[in-house]
Amino acid sequence: MKFGGTSVADAARIKRAARRIVDKRDSGCRVVAVLSARGATTDELIAMAAEVSDTPDPREMDMLLSTGERISCALCAMAIHDLGHRAISLTGSQAGIVTDSSHTRARIIDVRAERIVSALGEDHIVLVAGFQGVSTSSSDVTTLGRGGSDTTAVALAAAVGAEVCEIYTDVPGVFTADPRIVPRARKLSVVSFEEMLEMAASGAGVLQLRSVEYARNHGVRIHCRSSFEDCPGTVIVSEGENMDHAERPLITAVTHSTSEAMVTLTGVRHKPGVAASIFEALAEAGVDVDMIDQNVPASGGGLAEISFTVPRERLRDARAALEPLAGGAFSELTAYEEMGKVSIVGAGMRSHPGVAAKVFAVLAAQGLNIEMISTSPIKISCVIPRDHVESVVRALHDAFELSGPDTIMAEQPFATGGTL
Amino acid sequence: MKFGGTSVADAARIKRAARRIVDKRDSGCRVVAVLSARGATTDELIAMAAEVSDTPDPREMDMLLSTGERISCALCAMAIHDLGHRAISLTGSQAGIVTDSSHTRARIIDVRAERIVSALGEDHIVLVAGFQGVSTSSSDVTTLGRGGSDTTAVALAAAVGAEVCEIYTDVPGVFTADPRIVPRARKLSVVSFEEMLEMAASGAGVLQLRSVEYARNHGVRIHCRSSFEDCPGTVIVSEGENMDHAERPLITAVTHSTSEAMVTLTGVRHKPGVAASIFEALAEAGVDVDMIDQNVPASGGGLAEISFTVPRERLRDARAALEPLAGGAFSELTAYEEMGKVSIVGAGMRSHPGVAAKVFAVLAAQGLNIEMISTSPIKISCVIPRDHVESVVRALHDAFELSGPDTIMAEQPFATGGTL
Repeated sequence: MKFGGTSVADAARIKRAARRIVDKRDSGCRVVAVLSARGATTDELIAMAAEVSDTPDPREMDMLLSTGERISCALCAMAIHDLGHRAISLTGSQAGIVTDSSHTRARIIDVRAERIVSALGEDHIVLVAGFQGVSTSSSDVTTLGRGGSDTTAVALAAAVGAEVCEIYTDVPGVFTADPRIVPRARKLSVVSFEEMLEMAASGAGVLQLRSVEYARNHGVRIHCRSSFEDCPGTVIVSEGENMDHAERPLITAVTHSTSEAMVTLTGVRHKPGVAASIFEALAEAGVDVDMIDQNVPASGGGLAEISFTVPRERLRDARAALEPLAGGAFSELTAYEEMGKVSIVGAGMRSHPGVAAKVFAVLAAQGLNIEMISTSPIKISCVIPRDHVESVVRALHDAFELSGPDTIMAEQPFATGGTL
Repeated sequence: MKFGGTSVADAARIKRAARRIVDKRDSGCRVVAVLSARGATTDELIAMAAEVSDTPDPREMDMLLSTGERISCALCAMAIHDLGHRAISLTGSQAGIVTDSSHTRARIIDVRAERIVSALGEDHIVLVAGFQGVSTSSSDVTTLGRGGSDTTAVALAAAVGAEVCEIYTDVPGVFTADPRIVPRARKLSVVSFEEMLEMAASGAGVLQLRSVEYARNHGVRIHCRSSFEDCPGTVIVSEGENMDHAERPLITAVTHSTSEAMVTLTGVRHKPGVAASIFEALAEAGVDVDMIDQNVPASGGGLAEISFTVPRERLRDARAALEPLAGGAFSELTAYEEMGKVSIVGAGMRSHPGVAAKVFAVLAAQGLNIEMISTSPIKISCVIPRDHVESVVRALHDAFELSGPDTIMAEQPFATGGTL
């Protein structure tokens, strides 16, 4: 069971999570629970670091940030004791989450779950601080990056052979679109790993991308559900498992992002190594590039155009990284700051041609040019101006008839983190 | 170098501590710095625990409370990096502070300083989270009790063979009396361990009692000084070392406490085992008894009276612990809630008779009965009503002529913790 920041935001919610954990234990399950930092704790700690240093050291950042989850776990263990159950809280290190040494974005390389297993054997409920681990090289505290607690939960589920990894969050599950934009969006009961990966990568905030990858690679069944109500959420499983192919819809969901920036480089010398030098410079600056498009105008005299998207907050870094190459690898850089991305995702589109055509028709009906397109066998993404994102999401949701008869209306406000 | 909670209370103060540490490093010293939790952090964490549980589990309390010092250390390390020096923060566990398993009041049983020594060798300034350690038995986080960071600092100073353990605090040093009560109190340049132990035990809040014991047992020289100004404070050394016997004053300081409660039991059956049963009941309830007085009135018919003092906040627990014995071991319990204690401390009184007589004369001149008296070779303590404490402190300070010509006036407000 994994509880996110909003699910442990204050004493009342910690007690509610404790109750939920104890109920699960009472139903006969052995429980390992992974907790995030309470509410805004991580942001507060980051703000503190910014007050003392312009460029906080990553190792020290991890020492700082890892405290939030420990606080949540200790408090929840106390609350569980008060409910008459045995509980023990463990740091990432104590729980055996071994990572590499990439501070602030470490990757789990091993899970040594002996202590968890022995605590479960002693009838303890085990609470594990999410988002953190310990590096092999120097026994330092590491963190897994934003949303890393999902990955902690999936990794522990794999290590202890859990029946299911339940991710409790502030939304009731995975929806066909963001219910704040599409009120008739439908909660999905089952999604495949592949679809969930595409959705997480294209804007669905409900699960961290890396946790879905980890779950797919280790065959961990994820159940993503509400921490505030007790009804089933969305189960994420291997394709084929529990998924009725006959009834599979063409499209599973519409996802979106409104935080894109697009960069177009013109006058790019069209010869081997030039494009590589451009994207190497971005990689060295730690800027994640999402979509890339290159074309060589027939009239361009051997010069190409390259466009790509980056998260809007990284645009400044991207510009700085490319500046030294201006006049050499390319002649001019143009940035489009206010962009968004709309995607449709569905394993069903593999066997159905014509999906792309339908998407383009919907966009054309809105009078929109598509700035960039990127496709995978189960996804089509379009970059469009940010202020058209909402209307396009609604139009696509309608066009692909994603509102079913069993539409579940959103009953509580949705946090930004849980977009879909 | 040890910095207390007020010395790292906000970003500006953390930067000032970082500056101070870097200056020390630049002067050619290798530096290990122990930091407390920022300002009110520990109290906030305790309040959180109280919100989720009536009786927070001690192990979880330690997991919770140990986060505060880690935050201070990580932030200070960042600030030191910004000043161009290498720094590394270590948890109590990483620093090799090994304790027993008495959660919330663990005792250090070993210091395995290899990692500190190797980090110093790599030209790092080492920051260690105070107040915490790791238990041998189960590798759990433990804490050393209130003020435990002083003990961390002294223990590390002993382990690495430090030249001096500097305790930076919000007062300029150890005074002949609390300067808030005696404006002409004088800062002492040298105090012996024995005197400091008596002073810490009788109300001087500037150093934790246990840290002074540890320093005495391991021969660690303590320099207690201000973190806000750069002048020498008070050095605590072995008796004889650097102390000019010829010039030693009769009395070194007057200390006091205003948080005492006194309990008198009458009709105590005067036979072996009865007193033991009373104090065993108090010990089981975790109530620390300070002074004890017993007398058998000639006319008492074999029944004795026992009086003792406890911290006022523990009076309720003391009553509850003794209730089952009423009517058996003793007949009646009377509590005096508003008591205080005034003590004079000085190694010089060993060789000078008549000190006690002078104390009694001062109290008599104030029209006061002494409720209880306790003495050691270098200390006399008197229990008196709380509201007379201040005037008695001033009277004793005058009577023993403790204001010297080199009186240093208090220049900033004194925090409650740093009474003397």
